[in-house]
Amino acid sequence: MAGKDLPVSPLALPLPAMPPVAGLRLGSGRAEIRYKAREDVTMMVFPAGTTVAGVFTKNKCPGAPIDWCRAALKGGKARALVVTAGNSNVFTGKAGRQTCSDTAKAMAGLAGCKPTEVFLASTGVIGEKLPTEKLLAALPPLFGKLDEDGWAGAASAIMTTDTFPKGATRTAQIGDTTVTVSGIAKGSGMIAPDMATMLCFLATDAKVPAAALQAILAKGTQKSFNCVTVDSDTSTSDTVLLFATGAARHPRVPAEGGKMLKDFARAVHEVLMDLALMVARDGEGAQKLIQIDVTGAVSAKSAHRIAMSIANSPLVKTAIAGEDANWGRIVMAVGKAGEPADRDLLSVAIGGTWMAREGAVVTGYDETPVIAHMKGRDVRIEVDLALGRGKATAWTCDLTHGYIDINGSYRS
Amino acid sequence: MAGKDLPVSPLALPLPAMPPVAGLRLGSGRAEIRYKAREDVTMMVFPAGTTVAGVFTKNKCPGAPIDWCRAALKGGKARALVVTAGNSNVFTGKAGRQTCSDTAKAMAGLAGCKPTEVFLASTGVIGEKLPTEKLLAALPPLFGKLDEDGWAGAASAIMTTDTFPKGATRTAQIGDTTVTVSGIAKGSGMIAPDMATMLCFLATDAKVPAAALQAILAKGTQKSFNCVTVDSDTSTSDTVLLFATGAARHPRVPAEGGKMLKDFARAVHEVLMDLALMVARDGEGAQKLIQIDVTGAVSAKSAHRIAMSIANSPLVKTAIAGEDANWGRIVMAVGKAGEPADRDLLSVAIGGTWMAREGAVVTGYDETPVIAHMKGRDVRIEVDLALGRGKATAWTCDLTHGYIDINGSYRS
Repeated sequence: MAGKDLPVSPLALPLPAMPPVAGLRLGSGRAEIRYKAREDVTMMVFPAGTTVAGVFTKNKCPGAPIDWCRAALKGGKARALVVTAGNSNVFTGKAGRQTCSDTAKAMAGLAGCKPTEVFLASTGVIGEKLPTEKLLAALPPLFGKLDEDGWAGAASAIMTTDTFPKGATRTAQIGDTTVTVSGIAKGSGMIAPDMATMLCFLATDAKVPAAALQAILAKGTQKSFNCVTVDSDTSTSDTVLLFATGAARHPRVPAEGGKMLKDFARAVHEVLMDLALMVARDGEGAQKLIQIDVTGAVSAKSAHRIAMSIANSPLVKTAIAGEDANWGRIVMAVGKAGEPADRDLLSVAIGGTWMAREGAVVTGYDETPVIAHMKGRDVRIEVDLALGRGKATAWTCDLTHGYIDINGSYRS
Repeated sequence: MAGKDLPVSPLALPLPAMPPVAGLRLGSGRAEIRYKAREDVTMMVFPAGTTVAGVFTKNKCPGAPIDWCRAALKGGKARALVVTAGNSNVFTGKAGRQTCSDTAKAMAGLAGCKPTEVFLASTGVIGEKLPTEKLLAALPPLFGKLDEDGWAGAASAIMTTDTFPKGATRTAQIGDTTVTVSGIAKGSGMIAPDMATMLCFLATDAKVPAAALQAILAKGTQKSFNCVTVDSDTSTSDTVLLFATGAARHPRVPAEGGKMLKDFARAVHEVLMDLALMVARDGEGAQKLIQIDVTGAVSAKSAHRIAMSIANSPLVKTAIAGEDANWGRIVMAVGKAGEPADRDLLSVAIGGTWMAREGAVVTGYDETPVIAHMKGRDVRIEVDLALGRGKATAWTCDLTHGYIDINGSYRS
């Protein structure tokens, strides 16, 4: 957020120590694209042989960098990534495509690769031309100072209205070899289903064929970012990329991946989940992290839709902001999802206290423990539909005056 | 809202003079169901032969009164309506059904009709038992003071967080006879597509067969209330009822209605449209009324979905609250609708100034007239997709601190 000093989210988590990922060099620098007093360009450079997987926004009006990455992803190989913050290069027409092409060419010249092996992402204001010359001028000095330890700088340089940098790291075993999976992400408005965060970049030193990498990333994203929402608005720039440098010395992984990658997939999923929850924790104006567990739906898909309907309801989110145990609004949000639900079988709990069972308030219901739970930072909602075995979990944050403050004057 | 003195919406309109509808007697009184210092019960009584049409929420967890009305509507005849404010009798289990049945029986005893000719509606808090005995005690004195001029009292007695009473009236010709169509409505949170307002009641002295009445109401609702949204939350109580007393002396209308009802349908539609816009004008926290015109979509349905996606976007609505001509967010909302859209053909205008044409900002774009327009109370957004001939209009209000204030402590 240009020039604004937003208070750090009360739900913020510290950036963990981010160890090097063998093969990866990264760093951040200043191009002054929009922000004048902070770093706004991030660069990653990968060794030859690096494979890549990607998941992108389903918004029908995506930014030029999304088009660029979708095309580049077809090759399955990556040698560099350039990320800018402050201007999303969305709805910039021909100029936007030219910026992508020029940036990729310049980066390819530095990294000694093809432009189609360069990945691009931008986040920030929509509809303003990105000053390409400033970006191009910033690339050579940044390239000159890349090293293995640039994670913390990168996590900060990709932020926009985020109030804290977001990173996560895990190790996994492939055969007898330990590999690292690390990632960074930025939120924190325009966060909704169908690829939730605006930008998220993971890297690993594992050597994984592109197809297997893509399958692991797609599945992990479905269970993490796609279960998080801040405001139901789907960004035009949502991007998750996973780069595998192949620098680790483990036995060869077959093209289809398979059992050998089970622990690796677990690590990727955990990093994605950590980052997705950090995005919810840094939702614009967030004061509380809300977890919604839906059980008893007719299917997992139905449970997911109901959980997201609750997570996206402004009335549920304002009630939680007001620490009001208004479970009637939860019932409303279940009903508006349009999924099979029988009002007279429905049960609702907050903080483990069942307030309503089988379509009516619990006899002798005492609000005291619920109110106590809601005064905390973490609020848990449970809904049981008693129709089947479908279950799902979603996460969101409350809707507060902070959201209005931040978004009522974003560009000023 | 109980005990809260909300400032009247700056978009409020005065209640028009509401002339009597021949055959209808109505009034309002106090049951102290939740509100102690205002009227909270509304009653209408109709002559024998009155037909009725109804449209209800699509929420899958509707209130007990919705179930009651759906069943009663099958008869197509009405003799009375009872409306309560403060408690919606939703998610109240068996007790809620008993309240409906007891209320209908008591009202039928007063009006000299069958319980199935009594219609019921309730609005307010979800999940709390409605104190039936208080309601039943209030019915006889209220019945005793009904007259033809009770519209203004009724328009106020059905309100919850509404800040002004909403009414509209028209006349129409059926043959050479002038008939009256009048209606009242209440909002003003939990307002979303698929039957938008919480409660709306119309009455006419026309003599119209129930099937023809239902067709006119359904079509009118589709073009009015279903094009209005405040917060994307679909109420569990949304109800629109249209009663036709048949007291007017016009030629007999055939069962299927037809041409003879063209002017009558126009009047019904206009009353619905007036009331729907008043609901948007009284959206919780509303400071601006927003009209969204979408053209060039592949179909009218597609245009409607895109218009509603824009109308429901928290980021668009907060930008307008902040008087920020952030058309990038409009592009995002077009894209997130999931309907056919080509980013590079898209054009966006605010207040008649085209800011973006064919996928990029207009050359030499000057924000000055747009900012001037946005400082007003009425904001108009136009989107042209340049794909086909589908068009639609939607209305909403801006998203302000007032919405958070009202909904962060609804029950307190």
